[in-house]
Amino acid sequence: MPIDPGAVGAEGTPTERSWNFRDAILYALGVGCGTDDLQFSTEKNQLVLPTFSVIVGMGGIPFDRIGKFNFAMLVHGEQAFEVYGAIPPNGTVRTKGRVAGIYDKGKGALVVFECESVDAETGELRFKNRMSAFIRGEGGFGGERGPAQEPFEVPSRKPDHEVTYQTRPDQALLYRLSGDMNPLHSDPDIAKIAGFPKPILHGLCTYGFTGRALLASLCGNDPARFRSMEGRFSKPVFPGEALTVKLWIDGSRAVFQTFNPNGDVVLDNGRCTFTD
Amino acid sequence: MPIDPGAVGAEGTPTERSWNFRDAILYALGVGCGTDDLQFSTEKNQLVLPTFSVIVGMGGIPFDRIGKFNFAMLVHGEQAFEVYGAIPPNGTVRTKGRVAGIYDKGKGALVVFECESVDAETGELRFKNRMSAFIRGEGGFGGERGPAQEPFEVPSRKPDHEVTYQTRPDQALLYRLSGDMNPLHSDPDIAKIAGFPKPILHGLCTYGFTGRALLASLCGNDPARFRSMEGRFSKPVFPGEALTVKLWIDGSRAVFQTFNPNGDVVLDNGRCTFTD
Repeated sequence: MPIDPGAVGAEGTPTERSWNFRDAILYALGVGCGTDDLQFSTEKNQLVLPTFSVIVGMGGIPFDRIGKFNFAMLVHGEQAFEVYGAIPPNGTVRTKGRVAGIYDKGKGALVVFECESVDAETGELRFKNRMSAFIRGEGGFGGERGPAQEPFEVPSRKPDHEVTYQTRPDQALLYRLSGDMNPLHSDPDIAKIAGFPKPILHGLCTYGFTGRALLASLCGNDPARFRSMEGRFSKPVFPGEALTVKLWIDGSRAVFQTFNPNGDVVLDNGRCTFTD
Repeated sequence: MPIDPGAVGAEGTPTERSWNFRDAILYALGVGCGTDDLQFSTEKNQLVLPTFSVIVGMGGIPFDRIGKFNFAMLVHGEQAFEVYGAIPPNGTVRTKGRVAGIYDKGKGALVVFECESVDAETGELRFKNRMSAFIRGEGGFGGERGPAQEPFEVPSRKPDHEVTYQTRPDQALLYRLSGDMNPLHSDPDIAKIAGFPKPILHGLCTYGFTGRALLASLCGNDPARFRSMEGRFSKPVFPGEALTVKLWIDGSRAVFQTFNPNGDVVLDNGRCTFTD
């Protein structure tokens, strides 16, 4: 059995990750910030996008403990994070990762990883990340199917905010310099082997564009007010497609969905929290 | 006298500069490579743009020897480089810089710097750079005016090649991550103080776009065939403007000019050499 359900609870070796203001700028440009967002895309009075948490706060994951599998079969399912205060332009965190769950979904295995990052100097909690990965072809090992998904629905009223951002044909080429160099996002040959007509955008790039829309709509672009975000990747996005984020507010929470130009949901089950 | 003409011949402390394939990709994206130029914009069978020489090959310049002046008054005048063979995606060079000339142009001082870069491991010559800087307000010190400019004219026939590339409104924000973080190219307030309606594109970014046009037109995009390039910055370019490069071939040499959308020459006196 290649996937070992006994790996639940396994912890990886903690990792340390430093970043500087240039890394934060590169990330901001990678998720579409430009001359209209100089507080994110330059070092002048620089602010850092809350979704940068998913870049610097994922680490120490014990991939080797869950068994042997083909990484090319791994699909990013969901991503959630909580961030405790604005991220500084320069910083270092220490991150512990663990296997939080392994579920048998029949056609594949669903593996949930959790990471917790503390400031390397003060030990203060900075972010938590939760990522679920669906590994195609690795189901049927007789494990639990896992908890039923919490029902998600959006209010029937018109969205409280609707924001459209244009991605660029070379968006993935820039975004990948923030760390995920998987050639699925850059190499047409690899994309074809994986069954796509051309390279697809990183799920976390769509996630970053979406986070920008949430930050602008809910927090007046003040990262200190952003608290958490989660969503499920439901359809591939191709670089160059426009992304439309629709969101509905309920107090200090909101639900959201991100759409491609055909009206298909590409990031679903979106929930986020923020403060006044 | 703030500018010291006696500094001619002064050498700086040699510097060592390493780069990796990500730096070369970031530079390529900064000068407009995208999904049509995957050999430059990704690590697959990666090639490096010859103009990357001006990024990694400028160093060890003894700025402190030429006297005290206001850096904000410095304007990039001309840039020339020679490159000896294709640049590898990962490498280290050791660079010596020297003051090659200081001339009194009346309204300002013209200072010429030369840099020579060798492979840090083999000692083999990799590139030479020559940069001239015009320092406004620092003339009138009674120095030589310097050699007369070699006459430059383009043939009366239609250009042998004409290539237009679109720059993007955020081009400078991306380009500056390759090293030149001067806020003149990102901060609207600083640009206004310097007398521009908005941030201008880096001269060396225009230079990089131009180099791409030369490489494609003259060398079939094979960097190993590119030998040298020089040009004079004659007008500011604003991010978002299209750049049109016109070039005329004469054997293994070409002359070129780069134009903005109004038909003004922005990079003039262009000369380059290449091999078959």
